[in-house]
Amino acid sequence: MSTTASPREPKDLAASVRVLDAINRKRAGTALAADEIAGIVADFVAGSIPDYQMSAWLATVACQGLSTDELTALTRAYTASPRQLDLSRIDGAVIDKHSTGGVGDTTTLIVVPIVAACGAPVVKMTGRALGYAGGTLDKLESIKGLRVYLPTDEIVPMVNSIGMVITGQGADLTPGDGATYALRDVTATVESIPLIAASIISKKVAVRADGLVLDVKTGAGALIPDRDRAVQLTETMLDLARAFGLSASAVLSDMSQPLGPSVGNALEIRQALAELRGRRSPGLWDLCAAICRLMLQSVDSGLTDEQAMTRINRVVDDGSAYETFVRWAVAQGAAAAALEAEELPTASRRQLVKAAESGWITRIDPRTVGQATMLVGAGRLTHDGPLDYGAGVLLQHRVGDRVAKGDVLAELHYDRGDADAARQLVESAFHIGDQHVTAPPAVHQIFEA
Amino acid sequence: MSTTASPREPKDLAASVRVLDAINRKRAGTALAADEIAGIVADFVAGSIPDYQMSAWLATVACQGLSTDELTALTRAYTASPRQLDLSRIDGAVIDKHSTGGVGDTTTLIVVPIVAACGAPVVKMTGRALGYAGGTLDKLESIKGLRVYLPTDEIVPMVNSIGMVITGQGADLTPGDGATYALRDVTATVESIPLIAASIISKKVAVRADGLVLDVKTGAGALIPDRDRAVQLTETMLDLARAFGLSASAVLSDMSQPLGPSVGNALEIRQALAELRGRRSPGLWDLCAAICRLMLQSVDSGLTDEQAMTRINRVVDDGSAYETFVRWAVAQGAAAAALEAEELPTASRRQLVKAAESGWITRIDPRTVGQATMLVGAGRLTHDGPLDYGAGVLLQHRVGDRVAKGDVLAELHYDRGDADAARQLVESAFHIGDQHVTAPPAVHQIFEA
Repeated sequence: MSTTASPREPKDLAASVRVLDAINRKRAGTALAADEIAGIVADFVAGSIPDYQMSAWLATVACQGLSTDELTALTRAYTASPRQLDLSRIDGAVIDKHSTGGVGDTTTLIVVPIVAACGAPVVKMTGRALGYAGGTLDKLESIKGLRVYLPTDEIVPMVNSIGMVITGQGADLTPGDGATYALRDVTATVESIPLIAASIISKKVAVRADGLVLDVKTGAGALIPDRDRAVQLTETMLDLARAFGLSASAVLSDMSQPLGPSVGNALEIRQALAELRGRRSPGLWDLCAAICRLMLQSVDSGLTDEQAMTRINRVVDDGSAYETFVRWAVAQGAAAAALEAEELPTASRRQLVKAAESGWITRIDPRTVGQATMLVGAGRLTHDGPLDYGAGVLLQHRVGDRVAKGDVLAELHYDRGDADAARQLVESAFHIGDQHVTAPPAVHQIFEA
Repeated sequence: MSTTASPREPKDLAASVRVLDAINRKRAGTALAADEIAGIVADFVAGSIPDYQMSAWLATVACQGLSTDELTALTRAYTASPRQLDLSRIDGAVIDKHSTGGVGDTTTLIVVPIVAACGAPVVKMTGRALGYAGGTLDKLESIKGLRVYLPTDEIVPMVNSIGMVITGQGADLTPGDGATYALRDVTATVESIPLIAASIISKKVAVRADGLVLDVKTGAGALIPDRDRAVQLTETMLDLARAFGLSASAVLSDMSQPLGPSVGNALEIRQALAELRGRRSPGLWDLCAAICRLMLQSVDSGLTDEQAMTRINRVVDDGSAYETFVRWAVAQGAAAAALEAEELPTASRRQLVKAAESGWITRIDPRTVGQATMLVGAGRLTHDGPLDYGAGVLLQHRVGDRVAKGDVLAELHYDRGDADAARQLVESAFHIGDQHVTAPPAVHQIFEA
């Protein structure tokens, strides 16, 4: 018995008693009932459970894991909301995709217009950057005038007229996930496979698309670097998505080096536009093609791989994928000229990162590159920091390339921030050895629907 | 990546990064370094780590356990304080005892004066009731005038003149434990063996007595009901105490029924005074005798069990143990007459609990009895609730007794509160069967020094 009275008196004693009981039983190895999990999430959303109790519950779940039934219950609890999205009035089967996030990964901005141009409607709800990994919403804000949060009632008409929509997903579709995610982020309970799976799949369940393709990263720059655990996350999410009736498939993709050559918000918009016009950068394009193929097959199971690739290449080569992106951006508020190269934000200053020795590039650490871009304002060091949309890094080489001493490895684009520290970080991200290494494939494994 | 920005920006980013890193590594199975644990506790005491992060750390530790080195480091971290207690100026080797707490357990008020009357100085720092279990400080507040928190500089002179002191232990000797305990209490991380062990032993290390006797309860009313886990807690605490140089022994004692016949603050003072005058109630006295014997042997290893028992019985029978208690109470501020029966608080109303059938008493649930006394104001429902010192329950029977229908099982003493509900609870605590059962022993196991 302590001599110190607690300064913390929970507001709702009954709710606190319930969550404390659940923590004790979960720690002891008992599975929690579905209505119990629903109650805890609802009480937390309602403010009846204080942060310090919810974080103890989350930490206990992160340690003990969740059974299939518990995971399904948590996912359903996250989606309990007075607000629902109804995509049934969209013409055709709707496709969604999700990536666990990475560096130089602008796939969303490439695959969504390609699939839409192939005639399959896509609804993509997306988020902001957090930590060193980029966020699609931040990239889109580089485009002058574009409304990154589209009102719900405009989603269906937009998809029916343009074939696609990319919009920020507010927390109101999945209030339980919104409230919980913010706490997980500051309590080291982000890296738990069941908590990640419930968070991601709840957002997909709330959108209620017909087909879903998951892009799970593995390697040094991934949320889950370890390949076995990344596979486990993939399979957990696929099972969970299917339990909610989604036709889901997945790629396990490489994040042991930055995916594409551009890292930074407007730089990645330019990169995406170049890919849509046929650039086909190694790594980035390979992954985009695989995701597009799975997306098309997710709502058309008879489509062969070859048929899918023919369609994908055609809409790139005939310009219709690029045009779809431009028509969508304008429909969502961008000025017609906003996508011209000279209208996109550009940083005014450059520093070059050069090879300190000759040899083969053996490694380019994605986290270090991502952190370097944060130092010059391309990412956020705190939750509400302002961004420098033109800042970032252009990589001139990939793993496996041969370079000579003095060759330019990367270009740092910046206007402010600690450019010297950022350049040194980029330098330290490159490892050069005296033996040739083969670049890892962009796609490690495919999990068919 | 979430769409929701966190409203929680930690004040000290470096401290938060350290604790979050520790949570992730602890969950992954890595042992934490001693200076890392010291840093986390110091940062929390300093307010640099918010509650929601510390509770996630505690919940992770509660799930994953602590190695011996980690446990020692945590215990040492709890005692890091600018305030130290120096008992070296006490004449003779000083003895301390600790109980994990229970119902009807007034052993401290009995064993301390007995051991002191045997000539061995005792310093006992104690706490308040929390939940259904009693607290020595609350019981002592029944005695008019007695100062339950003795200033530190009065402790040594008091022990040198009277042979004993019982005083509240403020959190300032173990600030890390004080801060952490308050949070554990409201995050369901109380029932973790390493966290209990570090909390208890840090308080004992801070007092720095020469000998220490631990009384660990087992059974339905214990903090750790399960016997195997109670043994594990006992052994963990003994190892830890010895790592800090304390000569420690322990009893594993029964809390499957209330220990003594009196449950309630002034009722337990009366009970202790009666035991000091030779009442020798079954159960309560058996445990007190075992604890006294271990306390005497903890600073005099040559003393045989028989020699110890002879001394203990002598100071009870010749009145010197009782006189020691009275002299101490007066020295600590009580009026000379305050211990007279008519001066102790007495509730004015009674309800009788009678046997609904004839048979043998098979079970008396201690938690239920403790909860009943809380309903009439003998314990706290919230941290700062006022107490009714005269209220409580007098049990007329123990497990194994034969009773006839209509016999009085217990008397409820009260002035206010929900007496009907309390009486029903006491009734429900008694189980009567048609077969004789043997009462469990008061002492299950002894762990010699």
